Amino acid sequence: MNAPTTLTHLVPEIAQRAVPQALLDALAARFGAQCSTAMVVREQHGRDESSFEAPPPAAVVFAESTRDVADAVALAAAHDVPVIPFGVGSSLEGHLLAVQGGISIDLGRMNKVLAVNPEDLTVTVQAGVTRKQLNDEIRSTGLFFPIDPGADATLGGMSATRASGTNAVRYGTMRENVLGLEVVTASGDVIRTGTRAKKSSAGYDLTRLLVGSEGTLGIITEVSLRLYPIPEAISAAICSFPSIEAAVRSVIQVIQLGVPIARVELIDHHTVRMVNAHSKLGLREEPMLLMEFHGSPSSVKEQAETVQEIASEHGGQAFAWASTPEERTRLWTARHNAYFAAIQSRPGCRAISTDTCVPISRLADCLLDSVAEADASGIPYFLVGHVGDGNFHFGYLLDPNDPRERQVAEDLNHKLVTRALGLGGTCTGEHGVGLHKMGFLVTEAGTGAVDMMRTIKRALDPKNILNPGKIFSL
Amino acid sequence: MNAPTTLTHLVPEIAQRAVPQALLDALAARFGAQCSTAMVVREQHGRDESSFEAPPPAAVVFAESTRDVADAVALAAAHDVPVIPFGVGSSLEGHLLAVQGGISIDLGRMNKVLAVNPEDLTVTVQAGVTRKQLNDEIRSTGLFFPIDPGADATLGGMSATRASGTNAVRYGTMRENVLGLEVVTASGDVIRTGTRAKKSSAGYDLTRLLVGSEGTLGIITEVSLRLYPIPEAISAAICSFPSIEAAVRSVIQVIQLGVPIARVELIDHHTVRMVNAHSKLGLREEPMLLMEFHGSPSSVKEQAETVQEIASEHGGQAFAWASTPEERTRLWTARHNAYFAAIQSRPGCRAISTDTCVPISRLADCLLDSVAEADASGIPYFLVGHVGDGNFHFGYLLDPNDPRERQVAEDLNHKLVTRALGLGGTCTGEHGVGLHKMGFLVTEAGTGAVDMMRTIKRALDPKNILNPGKIFSL
Repeated sequence: MNAPTTLTHLVPEIAQRAVPQALLDALAARFGAQCSTAMVVREQHGRDESSFEAPPPAAVVFAESTRDVADAVALAAAHDVPVIPFGVGSSLEGHLLAVQGGISIDLGRMNKVLAVNPEDLTVTVQAGVTRKQLNDEIRSTGLFFPIDPGADATLGGMSATRASGTNAVRYGTMRENVLGLEVVTASGDVIRTGTRAKKSSAGYDLTRLLVGSEGTLGIITEVSLRLYPIPEAISAAICSFPSIEAAVRSVIQVIQLGVPIARVELIDHHTVRMVNAHSKLGLREEPMLLMEFHGSPSSVKEQAETVQEIASEHGGQAFAWASTPEERTRLWTARHNAYFAAIQSRPGCRAISTDTCVPISRLADCLLDSVAEADASGIPYFLVGHVGDGNFHFGYLLDPNDPRERQVAEDLNHKLVTRALGLGGTCTGEHGVGLHKMGFLVTEAGTGAVDMMRTIKRALDPKNILNPGKIFSL
Repeated sequence: MNAPTTLTHLVPEIAQRAVPQALLDALAARFGAQCSTAMVVREQHGRDESSFEAPPPAAVVFAESTRDVADAVALAAAHDVPVIPFGVGSSLEGHLLAVQGGISIDLGRMNKVLAVNPEDLTVTVQAGVTRKQLNDEIRSTGLFFPIDPGADATLGGMSATRASGTNAVRYGTMRENVLGLEVVTASGDVIRTGTRAKKSSAGYDLTRLLVGSEGTLGIITEVSLRLYPIPEAISAAICSFPSIEAAVRSVIQVIQLGVPIARVELIDHHTVRMVNAHSKLGLREEPMLLMEFHGSPSSVKEQAETVQEIASEHGGQAFAWASTPEERTRLWTARHNAYFAAIQSRPGCRAISTDTCVPISRLADCLLDSVAEADASGIPYFLVGHVGDGNFHFGYLLDPNDPRERQVAEDLNHKLVTRALGLGGTCTGEHGVGLHKMGFLVTEAGTGAVDMMRTIKRALDPKNILNPGKIFSL
């Protein structure tokens, strides 16, 4: 294991490649008003929710079709210029930064739901459709798409980072829920992967290779997804615990028993306080589990009774139901806004979010030691977790003008990741590697596996123009 | 779409590459009695359950460790000689044939369950452990591994072909249930992919790329798998239907309603007759669904009631329960032996098995037209299906001495695959491409996607020594 990361490692390596005027002219000729070189537009596309900074891309193409994406990539390829796909800009790990220069391709206008097949529980969307838009548009079918990262991200971006969220414990992540893709390759060709069949053994699983490839192997332009029937009964509950440990031990037992719980989120007492302030709630300011049960009315009742019993054995109390859709929505909106609630709690701060995920049996060990370290550091933080999956996030709330705080937070993260890897876990459950975890990836996967990734990257993108400088150095 | 396949295309292209005596000497020196060049051993390793034939491999190495596999591959690589991994030889598509010569690496002796983590619902096994052995060894933990292809295949082989089986409708396939791998690469290096964490966004999904790569990108030596709690209640039921259509329409409705049925298998009336004869059962010789429900006692009851109601609406009758474990085992053993029952029904025959999988709404269309064609052909056949996934198998029972029958069967298969692809499906749900479906893969995936597969293959196996000549031509 390496020595703790020092701040200097966290400044992305900036090695801007030239963007010839001839390319900008060609883009202007091909795309007209769909291409912008205005600084405000470039700057908006040159950052994400991470605290990294780099010079903005030289131009932004607003693609309205797969053909637009393919043409933009082909033009950039002709000039050896990097291309970076952009959805809504909600990445947390520096994925969108033009660390080697180049152009941004904004897929936000590719926002059509192309085909809903309710009888097959599938849907095909353009990459710029967001998760909330999708659920709004399919509501009348009685189906829903469960994957819900905090932000209202695009389904293309969620595919590219292998996102998940609060429902993953029951419904899986983008890995399990993407059936097929349309992708623009490094040469500007368009390929399709997968079919609408539920399973297949037909050749290499290009779909799964591209899901989570962070724009480095191709630009996702269409996504076919699995949908699920909206459960007959849905019930949400909250339960307060005397300690984080008691809450986590309850969750471990629920999972080990095979209870098909749909959501089980940990919120620590700091974060409950922030959420109360932000969302005008009166939750007990103690470690809390926020849970949801899906199924038939009797199955939901049975699941909830089992969980309530387990929680009581661990000192859980104030088990309370949100029985109306409005109450449920209010609680889950509050949970999804925890990040913003935390940011508001320290005006002017920036958050650095961790994303470790460990085997469920090691969750308490991993979490408790890291809480002790965070408490000792004096840095304010929030703590939320998709604990049913063994995944949790500390968000260290930093004064951006105090490099010492940044160093302390990165040291905390380094200790946490080191601990998680030692317990058989991963440095990133759902945010991706981006710029932030390139060093951790080598420690986690080993040089041999990362070299295999590099070999694939070099073969599929020989000019290194697809979102270069992310995941690993070449 | 191409013209129907003619028999000449089905003789694998044999282009034997030289196996120098120096390699055989080096293998003998390194492996001693673990390496055999006896013809009977070579012949046993040069075929599988397909009806393809090719000259046997020049030698067989019986690996007892990952180091053995790595050394065998490194020696073969030094001489540009192909290596073909071998489990129990149950592949159906010619995966194991040494069409370019080379050596077979038998992983059957690597049969240790290395680590059971009941509290995390995970297990790590050597590649030669079979699915039944695994379930026998973990029985005391209260957990089970659900993936069950017909044969008692090895978990390495099941990973390499992305296998599934009767439980996939509820538990997924090898794609969803492999957490990580240890793999020997084309250079004889050993890498690890994945972690024991339930989800990860850490770089390219090498695990999913290798699962289903049929030995062409690396040799799998260890597999980490998800396990599931043995359900509190299990109940099996059979129901006869007036027609295949009625049975299939019932299944479609069950899936669309989101009933979490664990198994739902179609067996047509021909096959029921064969199974009755083979397994001494007295089932009604009508199209039949064989189902299983997993869950709490009340959930199982509720699922079964819902399904029984749906079946009745479609004319299902003789809904009968197998309530004891013995009765259940008897029924499922009969189902798993359907292939052998069919083979016995026409002494001396060989079976050619189809493997299409379509979106569930198209299942009836795909199946009924293909049944009509098979009936009209006069070729005896069996028909079984994992219909909850839209996957089914015709097994055409051929006189191996009558090339006309083989031609008729291949023409039936060609029509079936063409139909399935037209309906948004795949040519192979679970058997893999091997030699048999290389042409279909191009039609299904398109030249661009297959070219991407080829590019990956060339990059990771520049000497083309890993099971060459399978999936696609290079």
